[in-house]
Amino acid sequence: MSLLLDNQFKELPPDKSVDTKLFLDTVSHIPAFFDCLGSTVFSVIKSDINGNITKIRGVYMKDPAKYVTLQDILVAEREAHAAEWPKVGATLALMWLKRGLRFIQILLQSLADGDRDENNPNLIQVNVTKAYQEALKKYHGWFVQRIFQAALHAAPYRSNFLKALSKGEEVKEEDCLANVRQFLVNYTATIDAIYDMYTDLNAELDYTV
Amino acid sequence: MSLLLDNQFKELPPDKSVDTKLFLDTVSHIPAFFDCLGSTVFSVIKSDINGNITKIRGVYMKDPAKYVTLQDILVAEREAHAAEWPKVGATLALMWLKRGLRFIQILLQSLADGDRDENNPNLIQVNVTKAYQEALKKYHGWFVQRIFQAALHAAPYRSNFLKALSKGEEVKEEDCLANVRQFLVNYTATIDAIYDMYTDLNAELDYTV
Ligand SMILES: CCCCCCCCCCCCC/C=C/[C@@H](O)[C@H](CO[C@@H]1O[C@H](CO)[C@H](O)[C@H](OS(=O)(=O)O)[C@H]1O)NC(=O)CCCCCCCCCCC
Ligand SMILES: CCCCCCCCCCCCC/C=C/[C@@H](O)[C@H](CO[C@@H]1O[C@H](CO)[C@H](O)[C@H](OS(=O)(=O)O)[C@H]1O)NC(=O)CCCCCCCCCCC
Repeated sequence: MSLLLDNQFKELPPDKSVDTKLFLDTVSHIPAFFDCLGSTVFSVIKSDINGNITKIRGVYMKDPAKYVTLQDILVAEREAHAAEWPKVGATLALMWLKRGLRFIQILLQSLADGDRDENNPNLIQVNVTKAYQEALKKYHGWFVQRIFQAALHAAPYRSNFLKALSKGEEVKEEDCLANVRQFLVNYTATIDAIYDMYTDLNAELDYTV
Repeated sequence: MSLLLDNQFKELPPDKSVDTKLFLDTVSHIPAFFDCLGSTVFSVIKSDINGNITKIRGVYMKDPAKYVTLQDILVAEREAHAAEWPKVGATLALMWLKRGLRFIQILLQSLADGDRDENNPNLIQVNVTKAYQEALKKYHGWFVQRIFQAALHAAPYRSNFLKALSKGEEVKEEDCLANVRQFLVNYTATIDAIYDMYTDLNAELDYTV
């Protein structure tokens, strides 16, 4: 089901630059993650994220030799679209994509850390809410926040979610969480590097949708 | 803003057949209607409806001479995809599209009829809810119904909605509603004809999403 854990991110080089092609190839497996949330309506989120990836890939493909790293893209777009930047092109797409990736990261980390509601140990609302608050909430107006509250009720059970992460195989919970922890190492480092890049280039925006 | 009232549907011929090209050309102005609901998150619905139209147009373009009427498409697909039909191709896309069109029809009709919540005369929740209950609710599972409830709070004020229907011009409410009534004549007849066609061909499904 989820190919998430099968497609590990690569270790970053010492300068923390993110190789565009490697990033795109690995991140394109992420949207399938939303299938393991169960309901087909999560396809809305899947297609938002897919749209971000398509936008970034479109820019990259125009000149792969020029856009070797993600930073190359942001810097080139800053020059080309001075007036609108950073609310433009792949810079905007990656700005949102990284938030979705951060949401997934925090959700998985929270599960791996064993955060849970002791009264409802098989629910993941507490983990999903934590991820939402840290990664997305401040970029959502009251309306989308309300949609999130409604969507939260459709979150899968913890056991089903972990099973889906293991492609539906009966894996021991501890083994699945060990895989998650392994996955998180380079995944988290990559996302952190992208966030740092947005800070360094002063490319982050905080408007709400 | 909304080009809805500028793009009138044509009167149907006596046999109530719907010309595919005319239908597609007129209906392609409908998605812009969702812009006048205000919030950008309604773009989710807009793109669902756009997807339906694109799917039908794709089938039509393969052989315009063969698919002169919408019924021609359904009958051809019934033969070509006996096993899956009607949950396939343009038949499925039009099945859903007509529900979105019916939603809009009932909403506009209810406004034209003067249905309103006397305690909150400038709210259209009562009209939107009526349209939802009659056109869509039975095809939505509890989760999407819940999303609808949340979305309902983002419905625009009646005065703003009517203004948007008049492309932002200051038109007298009665003049705007007269335009709506005019628009509804052929629009309603076209949707009724499509519903009748689904009944006659036994092409209607009632699964929920
Ligand atoms: C019948 C009733 C129907 C009622 C109507 C329903 C309306 C439903 C609305 C659902 C909202 C879905 C979430 C999508 C939100 C998106 O609006 C935002 C911003 O999206 C960005 O916007 C930019 C412009 O500002 C560019 O277009 C970006 O595009 S660009 O590539 O062109 O530059 C685009 O990604 N993305 C986001 O907030 C990212 C969301 C990531 C989500 C992560 C997981 C959350 C999981 C929750 C699980 C419980
Ligand atoms: C950060 C938090 C994020 C949380 C996650 C949020 C999730 C949000 C989910 C929003 C749901 C949006 C509504 C879309 C619903 C759609 O699922 C349905 C069925 O859609 C159909 O499905 C078929 C397969 O079964 C084919 O794919 C059709 O596609 S095909 O062309 O390929 O055959 C497709 O249209 N369309 C519908 O129900 C139609 C909806 C029309 C709506 C009319 C107006 C309602 C206005 C309400 C105003 C108040």
